[in-house]
Amino acid sequence: MQNIMDKLYENVHKKGHVCLGLDTDIEYIPQDFIKNYNNTQDLIFNFNKAIIDATLDVVSVYKVQIAYYEALGLKGLEAYSRTLKYLKEKKQIVIADVKRGDIAKTADMYAKAHFTGDFAADIITINPFMGMDTLEPYFPYLSEHGIFVLTATSNKGADDIEGIIAKDNRTVSQIVGEKLQQIGEQFMGKNNYSSIGAVVGCTNKNQTKAIRSRLKNMFFLIPGYGAQGGKAEDMADYLKDGNGGVVNSSRGILLAYKKDEYKNLSFEKAARAECINMRDKILKSL
Amino acid sequence: MQNIMDKLYENVHKKGHVCLGLDTDIEYIPQDFIKNYNNTQDLIFNFNKAIIDATLDVVSVYKVQIAYYEALGLKGLEAYSRTLKYLKEKKQIVIADVKRGDIAKTADMYAKAHFTGDFAADIITINPFMGMDTLEPYFPYLSEHGIFVLTATSNKGADDIEGIIAKDNRTVSQIVGEKLQQIGEQFMGKNNYSSIGAVVGCTNKNQTKAIRSRLKNMFFLIPGYGAQGGKAEDMADYLKDGNGGVVNSSRGILLAYKKDEYKNLSFEKAARAECINMRDKILKSL
Repeated sequence: MQNIMDKLYENVHKKGHVCLGLDTDIEYIPQDFIKNYNNTQDLIFNFNKAIIDATLDVVSVYKVQIAYYEALGLKGLEAYSRTLKYLKEKKQIVIADVKRGDIAKTADMYAKAHFTGDFAADIITINPFMGMDTLEPYFPYLSEHGIFVLTATSNKGADDIEGIIAKDNRTVSQIVGEKLQQIGEQFMGKNNYSSIGAVVGCTNKNQTKAIRSRLKNMFFLIPGYGAQGGKAEDMADYLKDGNGGVVNSSRGILLAYKKDEYKNLSFEKAARAECINMRDKILKSL
Repeated sequence: MQNIMDKLYENVHKKGHVCLGLDTDIEYIPQDFIKNYNNTQDLIFNFNKAIIDATLDVVSVYKVQIAYYEALGLKGLEAYSRTLKYLKEKKQIVIADVKRGDIAKTADMYAKAHFTGDFAADIITINPFMGMDTLEPYFPYLSEHGIFVLTATSNKGADDIEGIIAKDNRTVSQIVGEKLQQIGEQFMGKNNYSSIGAVVGCTNKNQTKAIRSRLKNMFFLIPGYGAQGGKAEDMADYLKDGNGGVVNSSRGILLAYKKDEYKNLSFEKAARAECINMRDKILKSL
């Protein structure tokens, strides 16, 4: 069976590891672009569209962070929906970074919300705090869709819960990862990755090799690159034979036009140049 | 200082412990009400409005579960927004059950999304998995608003993470609760409850008294009543001198009209009767 992680695997093989994060804040948009639009939803959608059009061939997957759109209310979510639909039109793989986590019928509703209809995405991020039963409502979708479950994040507070050491000496992150790895076995694709992947932050340098070898069936969504401190040279440890993970950058790409090296480029051309730069740096590190 | 939990405390004192959960699924709406509306957003909003109008004086707080509205896409979120605005018009306290959990600027965006604008609520539910730094973006709002943080839930998978026992013999739930209790000290109201409350599921019967005495500054949002197995006679253990918590029921109230005892009542009158019944049962158990 070919699952969504197979498609991602093939994209990584062809186009590299870049996951472009569309965490679009109005403050990121250049003034001379803003002046062309007289409403929020058109402005945000068209900024995203320009970025997408300029990067289609150098990005393996787009991740849209819903919080930025929710913050703008109904208009923001209209822009979110249009962005997702445009990405599908362009046959791109879309990760909706929603980090939902709830139980029973409420989780059914989140699955319906983010795998179908106005907000349909290919893969969504999930928060497992309430337990593994919270994942079950997504299972019926996993032949075509996928989930990336928060496993080992890279923020400063990650130790508060994920880093708690249990009586058996495993951390909460490790326990979560091992449970996910086991549950994921029922959703394996032809490249030996499950439709259940993991969010593994890229500043966990010391633990990286252990995490990678433990969670061998799991494709990784790796945030924390660039602005958050993750470096290209560390990426090899997160990958399995150079594949099995995508590395997200959001601000680093959306705001590339503000960097000295790209100062003569339009925002979308700067974004493209930064994607290529990031892609090549990661490939070189392998 | 009067904080949002003071307002909730005073409502509980006056009107009892019922938190009415507007987890509105179209399937819950009677056919003869559906036929009056020709679009989803009007239908859902007006069903909610009828329930709200019939229960204003017997309910202390309304909790709106966003997943049900997200599942219907943009139209659903329009109904969500209108429901929240109507509740504010009626001067009710509103909990947005969004269980968001993210870091840094993304959490800033969630705070903006759910404390201001189209989706403005008084209190929101938060998932703490990524750590205590994920709460900080909500702090600037806590003089007027509040958060209920997932602490000890009552679903079958709750033991997977919340129930992990750490080296010091505390469970993850206990560690989370104690951290929240401590962080909450900076946001205390005049009735000795912090703007940071806890979601504590009502089927944790054995642990209830310990949780209540440990988290003495935290107001509780208690789900799991009725349909999920929680009983009125157990409520006293979750409360502090009869206050300090609200008990949520959603389906039990929205679908009350299907119960034999209310079969001669309209759905909104059945909802009201069920709220009164639940309120009185809990008061009697104290």
